[in-house]
Amino acid sequence: MTTQRDIKALVFDVFGTVVDWRGSIVREGRAARPQVDWPALADAWRAGYVPAMDRARRGEIAWTNIDGLHRTILDEIRPRFGLGDLPEAEVRHLNRVWHRLEGWPDAVSGLQRLKARFVISTLSNGNVALLVNMAKHARLPWDCVLSAELFQHYKPDPEVYQGAARLLGFERDEVLMVAAHPSDLVAAQRAGLRAAYVPRPLERGEGGWMEPVGDAVFDYTAPDFNALAAQLGA
Amino acid sequence: MTTQRDIKALVFDVFGTVVDWRGSIVREGRAARPQVDWPALADAWRAGYVPAMDRARRGEIAWTNIDGLHRTILDEIRPRFGLGDLPEAEVRHLNRVWHRLEGWPDAVSGLQRLKARFVISTLSNGNVALLVNMAKHARLPWDCVLSAELFQHYKPDPEVYQGAARLLGFERDEVLMVAAHPSDLVAAQRAGLRAAYVPRPLERGEGGWMEPVGDAVFDYTAPDFNALAAQLGA
Repeated sequence: MTTQRDIKALVFDVFGTVVDWRGSIVREGRAARPQVDWPALADAWRAGYVPAMDRARRGEIAWTNIDGLHRTILDEIRPRFGLGDLPEAEVRHLNRVWHRLEGWPDAVSGLQRLKARFVISTLSNGNVALLVNMAKHARLPWDCVLSAELFQHYKPDPEVYQGAARLLGFERDEVLMVAAHPSDLVAAQRAGLRAAYVPRPLERGEGGWMEPVGDAVFDYTAPDFNALAAQLGA
Repeated sequence: MTTQRDIKALVFDVFGTVVDWRGSIVREGRAARPQVDWPALADAWRAGYVPAMDRARRGEIAWTNIDGLHRTILDEIRPRFGLGDLPEAEVRHLNRVWHRLEGWPDAVSGLQRLKARFVISTLSNGNVALLVNMAKHARLPWDCVLSAELFQHYKPDPEVYQGAARLLGFERDEVLMVAAHPSDLVAAQRAGLRAAYVPRPLERGEGGWMEPVGDAVFDYTAPDFNALAAQLGA
């Protein structure tokens, strides 16, 4: 049996794990246009995301960042929600709602606590500009903003996880991937990282769907970032 | 005459502009080994830096990050300073003194003030891990850590400046390069960015050499980051 190395850095999935994308879109959308079915729009928008990334991952479309993928999906779905005639400036503003998402209630306090002891970084399929703007908006105290964009590969490709460890200057097993999505964590483990599962039962609203854990086994499981910090001695 | 766009982001040269590399190496070195001529060692170490990067830029050596270049130079020079027999663990610790540099006295307060109004990022030839560790050590409140390493090009190659604007999601002339070194600023301007000169007369010690400005003209010139913030209305 080999001795486990100490964890040096935590890298975080962002959409759903750190920020409440669905609740944020619904709140902002309702304030501006109460007549639109925002929960359904948010779900349809997000549902287009994985297929769009997969087309980019398989090389069927040229590398496109998430702002670009979000715009393509939004243009497909918005006529169904009565937003087919929205002026271009307003479509562009709406597309950037993903830059203005809010953290889960424990996000800022938990990250601050973890930051005192570990390097903390994003590791998101969101593009760098989106993640930087979101961090300023939601006051997320990242040490570093790492994105799939830097590797021209989307998660769950191993290049993303391994590239993050390399850029941060740590061995892969010194890096802990934190996510609300078991598939992301399993891919991180296959790439040599360690894994912390922080389920977010409200990601798709009250009683909404959660990705099943199956027979996956993770190094840590915690209900929120402060509890994870406590488990890690931070 | 075209209307100038508003500045959205500031990207900073780091060694010499944000942190006092020479003073930090001298202070840490003297505390541990007072018999070594630390000012001379720091100057020799730094003098090897540009030629080493130029070999990488011209493709004469494979891409090597700054930690690797620093180690190569350190191994060349340390016998001259009585450090030829240093144990490997201590050489490795010394090489990482570049991760433990301290900011100029105005660095933290000035960056905090600028961060309230603009996106602020590193744009350094230092590698990501070095810049992240330095930021934690010196409490530099970056929104984003951008490095030459992400582009596999060292400054002053235009790929670095243009890549930073692209990743931050801004037009090139919405991005202001801040540096104590005119050559860095001139290269940024050629690449389409704007330029702020913050001379650091103590970079190479009292009365030490400063890179000449020549006939270069910059958008802003300020004695420190707080004065720059005032000029920018931050």
